[in-house]
Amino acid sequence: MTPELENLFSFLRFPSISTDSNHAADVRACAEWLVAKLTGMGLATQLHETPKHPVVVARNEHVAGRRTVLIYGHYDVQPVDPLDLWTTAPFEPVIRDGRIWARGSTDNKGQMMAHVLGVEKTLRENQGLPVNLIFLFEGEEEIGSPNLASFLLHHCDELKCDVIAISDTGMVAPGVPTLGYGLRGIACCEVILRGPKGDLHSGLFGGAVANPATAMARLISSLHALDGRVAIKGFYDRVRPLEAWEHEMWKNLPGVSDGDFLSVTGSPGLFGEPGYTSAERTWARPTAEVNGIGGGYQGEGSKTVLPAEAFAKLSFRLVPDQSPKEIMEQVQSHLEWHCPPGVEVEVRVGHDGKPYATDPNSKYGLAAQAALKASFNAEPVLIREGGSIPIVQTFRDILGSDTLLLGLALSDAQIHAPNENFPVENFEAGIRLNQALLKELAL
Amino acid sequence: MTPELENLFSFLRFPSISTDSNHAADVRACAEWLVAKLTGMGLATQLHETPKHPVVVARNEHVAGRRTVLIYGHYDVQPVDPLDLWTTAPFEPVIRDGRIWARGSTDNKGQMMAHVLGVEKTLRENQGLPVNLIFLFEGEEEIGSPNLASFLLHHCDELKCDVIAISDTGMVAPGVPTLGYGLRGIACCEVILRGPKGDLHSGLFGGAVANPATAMARLISSLHALDGRVAIKGFYDRVRPLEAWEHEMWKNLPGVSDGDFLSVTGSPGLFGEPGYTSAERTWARPTAEVNGIGGGYQGEGSKTVLPAEAFAKLSFRLVPDQSPKEIMEQVQSHLEWHCPPGVEVEVRVGHDGKPYATDPNSKYGLAAQAALKASFNAEPVLIREGGSIPIVQTFRDILGSDTLLLGLALSDAQIHAPNENFPVENFEAGIRLNQALLKELAL
Repeated sequence: MTPELENLFSFLRFPSISTDSNHAADVRACAEWLVAKLTGMGLATQLHETPKHPVVVARNEHVAGRRTVLIYGHYDVQPVDPLDLWTTAPFEPVIRDGRIWARGSTDNKGQMMAHVLGVEKTLRENQGLPVNLIFLFEGEEEIGSPNLASFLLHHCDELKCDVIAISDTGMVAPGVPTLGYGLRGIACCEVILRGPKGDLHSGLFGGAVANPATAMARLISSLHALDGRVAIKGFYDRVRPLEAWEHEMWKNLPGVSDGDFLSVTGSPGLFGEPGYTSAERTWARPTAEVNGIGGGYQGEGSKTVLPAEAFAKLSFRLVPDQSPKEIMEQVQSHLEWHCPPGVEVEVRVGHDGKPYATDPNSKYGLAAQAALKASFNAEPVLIREGGSIPIVQTFRDILGSDTLLLGLALSDAQIHAPNENFPVENFEAGIRLNQALLKELAL
Repeated sequence: MTPELENLFSFLRFPSISTDSNHAADVRACAEWLVAKLTGMGLATQLHETPKHPVVVARNEHVAGRRTVLIYGHYDVQPVDPLDLWTTAPFEPVIRDGRIWARGSTDNKGQMMAHVLGVEKTLRENQGLPVNLIFLFEGEEEIGSPNLASFLLHHCDELKCDVIAISDTGMVAPGVPTLGYGLRGIACCEVILRGPKGDLHSGLFGGAVANPATAMARLISSLHALDGRVAIKGFYDRVRPLEAWEHEMWKNLPGVSDGDFLSVTGSPGLFGEPGYTSAERTWARPTAEVNGIGGGYQGEGSKTVLPAEAFAKLSFRLVPDQSPKEIMEQVQSHLEWHCPPGVEVEVRVGHDGKPYATDPNSKYGLAAQAALKASFNAEPVLIREGGSIPIVQTFRDILGSDTLLLGLALSDAQIHAPNENFPVENFEAGIRLNQALLKELAL
């Protein structure tokens, strides 16, 4: 194994699951490992406490008159359940079929470590970097970065930069360099419907009182029209229509045809908002999704109860120029208005993040395209992303800088799911990409 | 503590949960305890194997020319989750506020043991019983009695009887003796909707493929019209309309007013089929209930997945003259027809049982009314029951005998739920009731 892969494997072995308080010590240990790695490369590195998980910042010696480039990544990962669907253990990385299999291999430790090791290589080969570099790595991305905005506000002078680069998005197909210029935002909430004070015998009481699980089904089905459009009043009001050049560029991209979506997801059929391709639906149109639903008996066999309550975890993916706060107000009004009789509704508002779009042909965008072309030896394509990196909008708000999205993730990377993986060749291309990018961004 | 209560407590301590294969040995141990108890009373007792849990049969020495009375009960119990909602441990019975608190205290061990101890008392006081008695106790009632019909077929000669008595139903209010002459039937199934081959990232794929949890919500909400009526085609076709005398008798009964339903269930409001009282809705009208629903992320915090599948456990309470098999065919057609696009539906048909009704003023019905009056010193009321005891219909089909429902359960007994309980006075009245009943049924 190469020293680069050994570094990545060490990094992947930390179960740095940010949402689960039982893993807080693992998240911290991962941050401390990172500090040691960056310090060892000769960067001035600091671990900053937050109310939850630490932020790690590292920098070379800055020289006046040079461009300052901030590279952001996150060292926390998603939960791993259902664990029994993993072929190999999520925190024991292995290479199989040319891919690295582990939680975080793509999202985001693999892509992030490619930047770290690209910088290490440039430092070793050139005794320095052609730009002023700031590495900013957080441990709360998977829970919506609750403390990063405040951290940026308190450190905005030392984090000021000309441009930001992030590799935490997708490539349309293997070997096709991809520049992302847009991201969906997100707004999350949990809905709880409460009926009887405890689970009831469905024979003795069924028919006389509302069933919270039945009521939840009706409430959730009110979120969409039958044709798949979101049925919340005002939901589409601020959606920026797709531009003609986007429709043109996207319609023939490799890897994102309707057929590709079908085979990658393994769904029995595609379904979504009428009038759009799958790429358009995921990159440029908003959604309402149920991430989890539950209530009543969950075990083996049957138990004829009328459940006391039911829950649903909802998230809404948003596009420019929707506002997460405004959407969540619309969602709350909708849920309260449509709550069926006989149950009480509680809406717990969760994390959110604004959608984002920038100009892929700005001077920084063109530099990124050149770096992608050089490191992959192919013409880059321009896309938006269906995922959410709320911090990109926050960077613009607080630091005033735009972000280049240099994604290395494949669509079958299984991020957030069992059997997450990352091709070794993407990891190696990522190291080259970092080297080319810093060169292209230098004045 | 009285010797009677000591007997009941020993019986209640067995965690005889029939649906959970981990408790198979506990179910058997409970049956063996029962065999020892009945044998000790001088009854000829046998434990009969079935493919799952044993049947226990006991009898006195039968004398030609006497009436033969079969008393049925079940020694298995429902699961106990959620365990943390129990005030005291479900299998460590205690007396508090004049009630016995334990799983099975009402359903059915407490009521069943009252019959056993009533017989023991009569045997002791009179050196014999005035009737030919058969005790038939099974361990599979809570899973739909899958092996009892076959057992009855194989033993129908030795189980032939004039009338059957069961105490496994409700009293309308404390101190009001209640004769039940009808039961709802049941038909159960589990629905599984499958979409993508694994959980997907809701950002990368959300919008392009159907979400099985969202689809399940739509499918479940198709089961009812907005007003609460079941919307399955043909569902009400065979429902026997309520008779005028039933409406008259039920409208002023204590303990079953709409207000009583509200306070017993603790629901924020009543909801059900328009045009009926709560008693009518639960005793004489059929329902469609969701007993459990699940899919996607169930843990703490949020996880933005698009789940691969979702399930719902459904049960339908049926009334004369609906047929469980016909209803389940209608349900399957409905679920397949209404399955939303982009997911695949599987319906797993579960247990069922026919609804039941008999004449409360037959000679046996009148004997039961007299016994109830004697043991409670109050005029009995005539009701149907919302619960299901499918075996009652099976008794009629195989043994040719009708069943008297001499319920001792109160509406706040919490059967099938945490904190199940049984008043000590109902237990004692049940012992007296058994003695009076055998006397009234004697020729």
